[in-house]
Amino acid sequence: MPLLVVGSVAFDALESPYGKVDRAVGGAATYFAVAASFFTHVNLVGIVGDDFTEVDAQIFHGRTINLDGLERAPGKTFFWAGRYSQNLNERVTLATDLNVFAEFKPLLPEKYRSSEYVFLANIAPALQCDVLHQVKKKPKLAAMDTMNYWIERTNAELRETLKHVDILMINDSETRELSNEHNLLRAAKHIFKMGPSILVVKRGEYGAMMVDHRGVFCVPAFPLEEPHDPTGAGDSFAGGFMGYLAGSKDKSDASLRRAMVYGSVLGSFAVEKFGLDRLRHLKRGEIHARARHFAKLTQFKL
Amino acid sequence: MPLLVVGSVAFDALESPYGKVDRAVGGAATYFAVAASFFTHVNLVGIVGDDFTEVDAQIFHGRTINLDGLERAPGKTFFWAGRYSQNLNERVTLATDLNVFAEFKPLLPEKYRSSEYVFLANIAPALQCDVLHQVKKKPKLAAMDTMNYWIERTNAELRETLKHVDILMINDSETRELSNEHNLLRAAKHIFKMGPSILVVKRGEYGAMMVDHRGVFCVPAFPLEEPHDPTGAGDSFAGGFMGYLAGSKDKSDASLRRAMVYGSVLGSFAVEKFGLDRLRHLKRGEIHARARHFAKLTQFKL
Repeated sequence: MPLLVVGSVAFDALESPYGKVDRAVGGAATYFAVAASFFTHVNLVGIVGDDFTEVDAQIFHGRTINLDGLERAPGKTFFWAGRYSQNLNERVTLATDLNVFAEFKPLLPEKYRSSEYVFLANIAPALQCDVLHQVKKKPKLAAMDTMNYWIERTNAELRETLKHVDILMINDSETRELSNEHNLLRAAKHIFKMGPSILVVKRGEYGAMMVDHRGVFCVPAFPLEEPHDPTGAGDSFAGGFMGYLAGSKDKSDASLRRAMVYGSVLGSFAVEKFGLDRLRHLKRGEIHARARHFAKLTQFKL
Repeated sequence: MPLLVVGSVAFDALESPYGKVDRAVGGAATYFAVAASFFTHVNLVGIVGDDFTEVDAQIFHGRTINLDGLERAPGKTFFWAGRYSQNLNERVTLATDLNVFAEFKPLLPEKYRSSEYVFLANIAPALQCDVLHQVKKKPKLAAMDTMNYWIERTNAELRETLKHVDILMINDSETRELSNEHNLLRAAKHIFKMGPSILVVKRGEYGAMMVDHRGVFCVPAFPLEEPHDPTGAGDSFAGGFMGYLAGSKDKSDASLRRAMVYGSVLGSFAVEKFGLDRLRHLKRGEIHARARHFAKLTQFKL
């Protein structure tokens, strides 16, 4: 089942104790699409500048990713530069140049409009809402990301968008800020009143937690000795999660749990190397092997 | 199989947004012994002052806890006062009066000396080592806790004690400080060179992680809407963990995993009410029901 994603396609300049790159293809929609493409067809909506070359676009080729919705505009592609601390647990943003992204008005190609699975990556809530309205029928599953910036500056628009999605996928601090609740269970109850019926909290090195009316499901982060670059981990998680659900066309509790695991698997691969280097060469067999490893990591018999 | 524990028995003054108590029985050995007594016989070694009354001692009564090793000395019982922040995620120590604990020289009653399971709660490493030497044969399983204070001030003695234990059970920041490694997998490898073959990292609201030569096992924290008081959570975890292992006389990987779950179960009950109020009235049936709930929290089928 095709999975629609709208979000940023970008160039990143990254620095961590493990190295430095000046211009790597990145952006939330890129990580998401690549991760999801292991499970399903992806319809990508985004914008790049005329500096985005055929070589840059190769990350999407040979995968089930449709680029009809990737607009090319005169000017430069969105650029983000960041530096990670010694332990990768803190990052400083050195530059955010929106460039062509500043004027982005997502327009869905006709054949995207029947998408039944939708992911709204972290962009302005008004744009997220606009994309949802361009989809003809209510999607079987719509999920979204957001960030503190939108919670603080465009709260009304964010509240409006939240009314129309099933799954909100954000991190701990965003969950607390949005709900004004420190306790994540109580935060989830607040968020359910805003629209979503499922909350997925991404907790970095502590894994991820899903809360819905049936209860809570937790997945740890995959223990890695040498993560190199956390950029895109959350978007890769979202891609694995939504990709699995769209591919399986099953939104039962058992399927949502597997989606949490596949999300964690993709997130864990993403951080192993710089930028998209690890996902670029990832094989399906490695994904399934790591999913089995997640079972070993968490399972017990009473 | 009797389980020896040496550690503090104390009076605590506690303050959290949920309430305030001026004088509650507490101390690491107390929480540990009560938690472990649901699974096995406990031999407690500690010291109290002459202000520790029969009413105070009732927390131990009607349980399989032997108090022959609980010394009574002239003076006051160890006293700790602390205040928790709004979200219970930070605490300020308001008072630490060692009192009779300052001169504590643990002396094992003869029948404790054949203990095959030993837990050294967080006390001076030299005392921990001394207790281990009083045990006749090498225990089947010896575990210990420690804290930043000992890592910084009595590092040589701590290193000596570590040579003689199988399991080190500490929190994230202690793990990082002891090993001088941020990454917990690399930290575990450093710690294995110091003596222990199993590292259990207590991560508060994120659960617990066990690392040994076979790999990693993770348990989340039980999601609670209204934890009241985190005091004693780590010691209750240790009590559930070691109690289960001593009771089952099985240190296989499967058994260690169950121990992690029962540790988490006891830790989760401990924080539900003030001080020992929840553990005091806890029933075995509730423990097993919550252990099954942990399975629901983490298990999935690929």
